[in-house]
Amino acid sequence: MNYKKLGKILGKIMILEAILMLAPLVVAFIYKESFKHILAYVIPIAALTLVGFLLQLPRPQRNSLYQKEGFALTALVWIIMTLFGAVPFVISGDIPNYIDACFEIMSGFTTTGSSIITDITDMSHSTLFWRSFSHWIGGMGILVFVLIFIPESDDGSSMHLLRAESPGPQVGKIVSKMKVTTRILYLIYLGMTAAQIIILCIGPLTDYNAMCEALGETAAAAYYEDKVFHAFLTSFGCAGTGGFGFIPGSMEYFTPFAQYVVSIFLILFGINFSLYYLILIGKIRHVLKSEEFKSYFLILGAAVTFVFISLVGKLEAFPQTYTTEESFRHSLFQVASLITTAGYTTTDFNVWPMLAKTSLIVVMFIGAMAGSTAGGIKVSRIVIAMKGAYINVRKLINPRYVPKAKFEGKLLEEKTIGDVFAYITLYSFLFVAALFLLSFDPVNGSTVQIMSDAGSYEMKHGFFSNFSAVLTCISNVGPAFEAVGPYASFAGYSAFSKIILTLTMMLGRLEILPVFILFSPKTWKRV
Amino acid sequence: MNYKKLGKILGKIMILEAILMLAPLVVAFIYKESFKHILAYVIPIAALTLVGFLLQLPRPQRNSLYQKEGFALTALVWIIMTLFGAVPFVISGDIPNYIDACFEIMSGFTTTGSSIITDITDMSHSTLFWRSFSHWIGGMGILVFVLIFIPESDDGSSMHLLRAESPGPQVGKIVSKMKVTTRILYLIYLGMTAAQIIILCIGPLTDYNAMCEALGETAAAAYYEDKVFHAFLTSFGCAGTGGFGFIPGSMEYFTPFAQYVVSIFLILFGINFSLYYLILIGKIRHVLKSEEFKSYFLILGAAVTFVFISLVGKLEAFPQTYTTEESFRHSLFQVASLITTAGYTTTDFNVWPMLAKTSLIVVMFIGAMAGSTAGGIKVSRIVIAMKGAYINVRKLINPRYVPKAKFEGKLLEEKTIGDVFAYITLYSFLFVAALFLLSFDPVNGSTVQIMSDAGSYEMKHGFFSNFSAVLTCISNVGPAFEAVGPYASFAGYSAFSKIILTLTMMLGRLEILPVFILFSPKTWKRV
Repeated sequence: MNYKKLGKILGKIMILEAILMLAPLVVAFIYKESFKHILAYVIPIAALTLVGFLLQLPRPQRNSLYQKEGFALTALVWIIMTLFGAVPFVISGDIPNYIDACFEIMSGFTTTGSSIITDITDMSHSTLFWRSFSHWIGGMGILVFVLIFIPESDDGSSMHLLRAESPGPQVGKIVSKMKVTTRILYLIYLGMTAAQIIILCIGPLTDYNAMCEALGETAAAAYYEDKVFHAFLTSFGCAGTGGFGFIPGSMEYFTPFAQYVVSIFLILFGINFSLYYLILIGKIRHVLKSEEFKSYFLILGAAVTFVFISLVGKLEAFPQTYTTEESFRHSLFQVASLITTAGYTTTDFNVWPMLAKTSLIVVMFIGAMAGSTAGGIKVSRIVIAMKGAYINVRKLINPRYVPKAKFEGKLLEEKTIGDVFAYITLYSFLFVAALFLLSFDPVNGSTVQIMSDAGSYEMKHGFFSNFSAVLTCISNVGPAFEAVGPYASFAGYSAFSKIILTLTMMLGRLEILPVFILFSPKTWKRV
Repeated sequence: MNYKKLGKILGKIMILEAILMLAPLVVAFIYKESFKHILAYVIPIAALTLVGFLLQLPRPQRNSLYQKEGFALTALVWIIMTLFGAVPFVISGDIPNYIDACFEIMSGFTTTGSSIITDITDMSHSTLFWRSFSHWIGGMGILVFVLIFIPESDDGSSMHLLRAESPGPQVGKIVSKMKVTTRILYLIYLGMTAAQIIILCIGPLTDYNAMCEALGETAAAAYYEDKVFHAFLTSFGCAGTGGFGFIPGSMEYFTPFAQYVVSIFLILFGINFSLYYLILIGKIRHVLKSEEFKSYFLILGAAVTFVFISLVGKLEAFPQTYTTEESFRHSLFQVASLITTAGYTTTDFNVWPMLAKTSLIVVMFIGAMAGSTAGGIKVSRIVIAMKGAYINVRKLINPRYVPKAKFEGKLLEEKTIGDVFAYITLYSFLFVAALFLLSFDPVNGSTVQIMSDAGSYEMKHGFFSNFSAVLTCISNVGPAFEAVGPYASFAGYSAFSKIILTLTMMLGRLEILPVFILFSPKTWKRV
């Protein structure tokens, strides 16, 4: 293990985190927050800078990183970022418990969006900003940032970093010219975020009248004034497909205009970023031919249709009364929000008919495209696994069958299919393991009171609560169902369960293997 | 496709089914049932004999079967057996709806034990016998019977039949001497069933006093008199790891003695039958060394411990009040019953604490050993997948790593691991697909009233109901949770859902691929 090189990179990343923390510090100044809130950022910034500087002092003998070191580093980075990133919440007093704060910021960096905050109105502007900003930081992967700072090494070690970081089985052909493409991806990300902020600022963001009615005039006016601030937070969450709410009811009180804008941008942020690169260099036909691209929109369209049918057909009784337009908007929004694993909500889908709920569960498993900021298993893996299953059946029918299945124009290799099968198996095992560990929690069997647009009702913390909690964390979505549904929080879970769920988010975000590598003693053995 | 040979074998199997149906016919005579009940068996017996005879008339040009034909035949056999096996229920009027009857007998032949019967006390003796007998028939796999009747073909085509039929990734080394070993396995199966019947007849079977209290003196006396009959049905269900109940409350009113006997025999029937063969030829050391054997008992022990802790530690409130002995007995019984995918119940585990419920869910996924009559993913696959995951991580840490992992003393080949990963992936996909299809059912969201040893309570048909219904069918267990729990039935599901669940049972029992092969157009194309 090349400790010195590892320390050097970690040090750089810590200084980067210190720089990023300047943003919420500025927000704290703008909103004239108390001294405690200023300190909340000044202290970790100082600590990060100091430790980050010290870590860079030793000179590594070897400048390159092995693959295992790259993977372990990636996992380590998320842990370090989380441990320091949680500090402001504790110092400011907004989330006094450190484990809760770690859950929250890990949920931010992994772009999950699950929250332990029970009343969002208690939060300061700087805290809300830091939470949503962490989505944006996490979104493209901290290491895509980092690549810009790390000089390209001669043996392509930075390649390993991106491989561990970028979601999905393949980043595309464009990874060869590492540094340039990283910068291009980063610019696309920045550009799209900026575009969304501008569009949100032009149109109406929150529905003043609805807010007045629900939250009172003072609160509604305050939220109305914060429009630009909220446009920023919304775009951060969309870009990173995070989904932390920042006003009561997530996006329930957003105007239809804003809800449509968010839906569309979410869908756009769920697309493989290398396809944008292809568009930029004029290869639009390649994009339209992409199987993952077509499958993504097929799944999206099918899910919206099923949810919409379920709502307008009133397949089962549910408390909300929607117009047809509302049914369509909520269907589009919730499917877009859950397939891209953002997790914003416009209505309480917890009480929807079973077909709608199951469709949402299925898209939460699938997730959006590889190479996007979304979580989940990824559309490409689903497509590859389907083709792999077909090949398996064909081989049994005719043992001499030579598979000719292609993916994205390339012959599907057995190794690729095998890797996907292995991934889905591991995913299932970890899912069951986390579910089992949550079953020890004393919160099971208890009842929570939920207040939403569906009225006030009781929800028991049952099996579906735990099942959907694990799913929402491993797929980095955000809200779950039942007692941890869109209008509830994860606050009821014990510290042990919160740690399990925090790790689950990290496993999901880093696609499992880097985390295993970090915790494997073999990684740390001197060769 | 060698239609004539296929027809010949199918014909033989139909005649075999006719012969097997003589047993419930005898039962109908013994219990002096009405003419309708006699006809219920005479008609299908006549039909099966006639069609079976006609199918054997054409002389096949080729006497062998290709692998794909073997697989397709296996799946076809289950369908034909089910379509004819359901007839007696309809004619006797015990289950008047044909789709319900197909669900019930498929549940029998696949040794699932899920039932659509809402009141078991309405059923005639012959119907109860045929249901439980179908477990016993399905148990070792219809084709293991059939092999005795089919002359061994020179190209080992019968090998393909057993490969599709016997649960688990490998049957063991003993399959080479096909016909002899099949007979030996069959004798072991017969011997163990007989042993259980005798033991159950010696000790007390049902608890007369408890039954008196719950069901009245007349009913209790009638059940008490049927002891030998019930001993047969119990053993049929245990041997096939089926689990159809035949008195109210499944095995709630069985004596502790009988409950322990059932637990132990279930565990024994969950063991790979080739291990019994090894014991018979004196190779006990090989058995004790078997990794699957050790893993099976490890999982079993761990699950019993967790359920027991959950019950005696009162981790959550639940309505029943157990003594410590009862807690242990119910823990042992339910884990044994669900890991072997039999599905008998002694108490309403639907209201147990979450840890107990989740432990049961996990063992339902795992199932017992390969080469037993149990369903589920199988312990061997779980062990192989774990080792495969470990190898994958090691390979990422060190790309030059040469895996030396072994299973049952043999080096684990990449193909074996790949097949297991593929199987678990397919299993997960089918699981999600079935879950999605059930979400269309109008029963979702409705409420059922449940009466059990936990009292009378309401259960909503929610997500967990569908989730556990799919699990119980794909793993061939029997009871599920919530609205389809141990004291409820599958009667509430729509015809469409019942067909889906019937297919799910078949997919689970035949381990997915043969069913795909049967329905693939490629199979039926003339080469």
